Amino acid sequence: MPELRQNRFNKEWVIIATERAKRPEELSVKRPPKHLPHYSEKCPFCPGNEHMAPPEVMRINDGGPDWQIRVVPNKFAALSRDGEPERKISRSQRTMNGIGIHDVIVEGRDHAATTGLMNDEQVANIIRCYRTRYLEVASDPRITHVTIFKNHGEAAGTSLEHPHSQLIATPVISHQVRDRIYEALRHYDEYGECIFCAVLDEELHAKSRLVAVTDHFVALEPFASPTPFATHIFPRRHMASFGDISDLEMEDLGRVLRTVLAKLYYGLQDPDFNYTIRSAPAENRGVMYYHWYLSVIPRLTRVAGFELGSGMFINTVLPEVAAGFLRNIRVPEKNAIAEAVKIQ
Amino acid sequence: MPELRQNRFNKEWVIIATERAKRPEELSVKRPPKHLPHYSEKCPFCPGNEHMAPPEVMRINDGGPDWQIRVVPNKFAALSRDGEPERKISRSQRTMNGIGIHDVIVEGRDHAATTGLMNDEQVANIIRCYRTRYLEVASDPRITHVTIFKNHGEAAGTSLEHPHSQLIATPVISHQVRDRIYEALRHYDEYGECIFCAVLDEELHAKSRLVAVTDHFVALEPFASPTPFATHIFPRRHMASFGDISDLEMEDLGRVLRTVLAKLYYGLQDPDFNYTIRSAPAENRGVMYYHWYLSVIPRLTRVAGFELGSGMFINTVLPEVAAGFLRNIRVPEKNAIAEAVKIQ
Repeated sequence: MPELRQNRFNKEWVIIATERAKRPEELSVKRPPKHLPHYSEKCPFCPGNEHMAPPEVMRINDGGPDWQIRVVPNKFAALSRDGEPERKISRSQRTMNGIGIHDVIVEGRDHAATTGLMNDEQVANIIRCYRTRYLEVASDPRITHVTIFKNHGEAAGTSLEHPHSQLIATPVISHQVRDRIYEALRHYDEYGECIFCAVLDEELHAKSRLVAVTDHFVALEPFASPTPFATHIFPRRHMASFGDISDLEMEDLGRVLRTVLAKLYYGLQDPDFNYTIRSAPAENRGVMYYHWYLSVIPRLTRVAGFELGSGMFINTVLPEVAAGFLRNIRVPEKNAIAEAVKIQ
Repeated sequence: MPELRQNRFNKEWVIIATERAKRPEELSVKRPPKHLPHYSEKCPFCPGNEHMAPPEVMRINDGGPDWQIRVVPNKFAALSRDGEPERKISRSQRTMNGIGIHDVIVEGRDHAATTGLMNDEQVANIIRCYRTRYLEVASDPRITHVTIFKNHGEAAGTSLEHPHSQLIATPVISHQVRDRIYEALRHYDEYGECIFCAVLDEELHAKSRLVAVTDHFVALEPFASPTPFATHIFPRRHMASFGDISDLEMEDLGRVLRTVLAKLYYGLQDPDFNYTIRSAPAENRGVMYYHWYLSVIPRLTRVAGFELGSGMFINTVLPEVAAGFLRNIRVPEKNAIAEAVKIQ
């Protein structure tokens, strides 16, 4: 018998279709491994090709003469950096000129690198770069919300191979973000607690959906996961805004994120994936009712007409099975530090 | 300068990224045309292979000895037909046993057929089948919402070639559907009008986003279209529930839907697409504030991390450009009736 589960954060229902159940291995990508070069002369993100991208807005050198991570404006930006936001409201239309910020974060010098195989410190550096840029951009008075995300592979919406992530800052707060915050507020007003803190607590006790636990973060498969192997990484300390992550937490997040992505890499053979940081908007920075998290979404299945029509998803892998599968994936020796990430 | 546009039905913002603009032709599918056989011995939906699918629940014979359209339970149903809905509510979890109905509508006998190249009467028959089955299923007291949809092609989530659509009836109303209805209700309470009727009126005057107009339906590109060539087909008569479509309207919808899909077929070279009927739930059948419509979504682009993280979409084709492009696509002679569908 299939089961319907309700996502407690956004109130959406998910069909866990056990009758259609697949073993996790069946979802792994059946394609030859990529053998990318470490440098590509056509790649605007490779060292030496810096002139092919717009002028840098930030870099991390990490003590050496060369950049280790750099941030550049997206050459094909979805929003324009210049101008003031101007709403036009008529009886029938609501529009705004498309101002905003669209950055690319070049995550390293190696064209062939992939996050799951980087070392923890390198991933922590990427997180540090996110925080710095997040705080800069969020302080721009024209900006109301900042989305940081990564697209890895064609199914995830990118054809650029060089490891990179993006930041898009908008002068509006989307309905989806408002809605998630509103549901969290309603929970707070009813129960006097952050729903995210409550769920974390429950999940740490239940254990069945945990993937990795450290001093500062918990990685888990959500109870009502809409897609197979969607993994949430929550800070254990209550924090509404990603901008408030501490130095220690960033180091820890580097480890946990790398571990989760390594498990996906080895367990499902380098699947295409997205990840995104779901932070409260700047104006909700200090609130008691919202809690930021990082969501990793492997792109193993297709969204079809039912999902588009109803907003409900059909998930063919039980989150508990996915969590058990990921817990059991051994990360090879050279990333041995990940083995310290344990289920307590 | 890009433009932000707000969808008035669900309040979501969309980025119309003119800086990234593509000509419509650039989005058309670059792949060799499919040459499907008219019969496949492995296909459970081909005539003669009826035993390969579960027992039929409905058929349309159209006067002859053979079925023209038939409805069968989905062999890999996402929900179980048997049992009573039972909610389990605990402090931390909300679940329900996965009961519901999951039908497949086999749209014809020809394995190689595709909706855009069918004749209008055949498409009208598919609509008639939808209505009959919709009313049957919606009257089941266990069911609260019915989603009818079609997946065409791999990018749209199907690998089955034989033309078919599906119906999934659930014992819950999704958050997305509730939210759309709630926003429509708020508009009604503020302005005393159905927001959909109001938008239709405006679009018929503005003309720039119209694709096809008949006595009973209007096909248009929505002002804040999240993806290129997403096309909405609205009944001109106010009706909350698809179940209330009249005989005359079904005939007309057959024509309009076939015309829209033919224009996509010829204009963009048989793109993969989904369509879905967004009806009010059974319990909202007679309401003044909601209005059903059919949404056609060509799958020309990928959802990436920004969309997943923020709920906002980046659309690279101006809806007005998409509408002009589709208006200008001539549908060949053998479908000449479509030429009667005109912009008034």
